[in-house]
Amino acid sequence: MREGLQPLPLSKVYQLIEPGPVVLMTTAHKGRANVMTMSWHMMVEFTPPLIACVVSNANHSFAALRATRECVIAIPARNLTAKVVKIGNSSGRGIDKFAAFGLTALPAVSVAPPLIAECFANLECKVSDTRLVNAYCLFILEAVKAWIDPKQRNPKTIHHRGYGAFVVDGPTIRLKSSKP
Amino acid sequence: MREGLQPLPLSKVYQLIEPGPVVLMTTAHKGRANVMTMSWHMMVEFTPPLIACVVSNANHSFAALRATRECVIAIPARNLTAKVVKIGNSSGRGIDKFAAFGLTALPAVSVAPPLIAECFANLECKVSDTRLVNAYCLFILEAVKAWIDPKQRNPKTIHHRGYGAFVVDGPTIRLKSSKP
Repeated sequence: MREGLQPLPLSKVYQLIEPGPVVLMTTAHKGRANVMTMSWHMMVEFTPPLIACVVSNANHSFAALRATRECVIAIPARNLTAKVVKIGNSSGRGIDKFAAFGLTALPAVSVAPPLIAECFANLECKVSDTRLVNAYCLFILEAVKAWIDPKQRNPKTIHHRGYGAFVVDGPTIRLKSSKP
Repeated sequence: MREGLQPLPLSKVYQLIEPGPVVLMTTAHKGRANVMTMSWHMMVEFTPPLIACVVSNANHSFAALRATRECVIAIPARNLTAKVVKIGNSSGRGIDKFAAFGLTALPAVSVAPPLIAECFANLECKVSDTRLVNAYCLFILEAVKAWIDPKQRNPKTIHHRGYGAFVVDGPTIRLKSSKP
């Protein structure tokens, strides 16, 4: 069911999140999976990997995340940009976004929400701290399992600048640094 | 003293932070300014602009930020990448990083820490919530004043992938979207 996906060591999760790509978040609630687009997230700890994110309570996903305390963060490469926008401009209240936008849900190992086969990385996450949910809709997640798709080589991620403008990854600069 | 810098409406601050660039954070404590490199930050609210960030208590800047509750987030373009690495690999305990790395400190309006003239954007920030500082070194900041340097046109930011590897902004994709 997850053919081709390979586990990624949890110690490397920060290298996916720290550069600030747009991500997709899947949830599952009352038997239905949903997916939203998200850009407000950051690393909080290397190991175990903790990720903070803001999920507005205007989003259908908010109730699912708060109630089930599980999600998957799936990272799309640039070829999915049009779908990322459609996902962000629609609500799971009315439609099945997986069917509507041609996304393939794969079963996760540790959480109920699905992985997204088309994404080059998937992080199975559990909510570990809700102290700032009421104030800011800010959740602290722990990534408990990470997957990458080795068939997607050197995926270029996208970064949102507002109103459908995305900057795509360009060249890489490599300098000597002792810092992770 | 801030000749050439222009105010940026606070409602546009998220467009600078949301794409996930590496930033510099300045602090001022007991008469000394300091600067650190930071990649763990995210938007929390559009208006007033709230920004969450993690400043490790292993960093010299942590004590200054906690004690003074003020900082400046300065955003460097790619031409500053080598300095960004040097700033990240040294500590303000031992050196004056502004002098050591040739950074020009400019006075801010609303906070004591300085702006950095070489950066294309500077955000004057005050700490607005410390509830998760003890648990995760996670601060909630409010940007109270924002500046951009119009002489730096279309600056390309850098995104850290770990150990001195940075992805530089590449091409932009513009799609129709109703979402900010």
